[in-house]
Amino acid sequence: MSGVRHQIIETTCALLESQGFHATGLNQIVKESGAPKGSLYYYFPEGKDEIAEATIAWAGQNVAERIHTGLAVSDNAATAVRIFVNNIAAAVEHSGFRSGGPLTMVAMETATTNGRLNRACCEAYTLLQAAFAAKLVASGYAQAQELATFITAAIEGGIILSRTYHTGDHLRLVAEQIAQLLQHLPSEDNTAREEHR
Amino acid sequence: MSGVRHQIIETTCALLESQGFHATGLNQIVKESGAPKGSLYYYFPEGKDEIAEATIAWAGQNVAERIHTGLAVSDNAATAVRIFVNNIAAAVEHSGFRSGGPLTMVAMETATTNGRLNRACCEAYTLLQAAFAAKLVASGYAQAQELATFITAAIEGGIILSRTYHTGDHLRLVAEQIAQLLQHLPSEDNTAREEHR
Repeated sequence: MSGVRHQIIETTCALLESQGFHATGLNQIVKESGAPKGSLYYYFPEGKDEIAEATIAWAGQNVAERIHTGLAVSDNAATAVRIFVNNIAAAVEHSGFRSGGPLTMVAMETATTNGRLNRACCEAYTLLQAAFAAKLVASGYAQAQELATFITAAIEGGIILSRTYHTGDHLRLVAEQIAQLLQHLPSEDNTAREEHR
Repeated sequence: MSGVRHQIIETTCALLESQGFHATGLNQIVKESGAPKGSLYYYFPEGKDEIAEATIAWAGQNVAERIHTGLAVSDNAATAVRIFVNNIAAAVEHSGFRSGGPLTMVAMETATTNGRLNRACCEAYTLLQAAFAAKLVASGYAQAQELATFITAAIEGGIILSRTYHTGDHLRLVAEQIAQLLQHLPSEDNTAREEHR
């Protein structure tokens, strides 16, 4: 990806994440990305929708990769998810509660009003859920898809509460509850732990 | 509450729920509520922020009451929460995915940009969590506050996914996962069930 195109997408992602789709204008993207206005129209001739679509696709891939990498820190899925969600809590705090959940606001804003961005959000959320499911499958959980969706939902909600209350505690609580849930369900991780005792 | 004032608040609630704070303008509130523009300024002399603040407060109380009433359908907390969340799924579907989660979008949009509305959202979310916690306390769950926060987060996330994917299935899955979790934790409900066997 060209440097300027990527710069536009990263800036747009930060804006969608902190203030949403409706509040984000092309002029702000130009100003904050430092990209010449001509290059915005060169890379995205269809304007704001096209930029947002590319940004959502990039954010979905980027977050899914971070989930894959983040969950690789431990073979134990419960431990891995706990660490991963605690890291989101720290990142949300570090951002001054301006970031966390790049898809959330744009997904809600465009759910029934913009088919193009709605499809992009569905595809992005599907990547996130698949990344969690892959870890759960590798750890031998039954119903890995359902659990992955539940984990995705709980983290999304935890991000909303943490950003609203200005504390990472809600996300850390979500981390702990998911970890406890995963420790209580039958899986290869937990069979191994039982046998180890 | 006066009829006109309430009409303005209910209209604003529907608009915040379907399209968010930034996309909602005073003219649209006037048009869709049918209230004379003068009455908007009579009841809310400070304008959009004041209307949104009153709407968030009303929505928090309204949803909390619906949680209290909804969870009263069964003495068993797991059963009650399952039914309650399945009812949200049906309502979200019935609305054409335009409603569900009146706080979510405005909470994210105003988290770091509007202290007045941020405080209103915190107070509203606190009412929701307290309503779930009350049921869990009555059913003898330990860590009722933590569980209530987790349930609130999972439902919020489930609403986002259901509205995005245009299906209530994600919320029904959240309903099932929360019910299973509650059935596995020690509580008076579950002790009674064991003794009954």
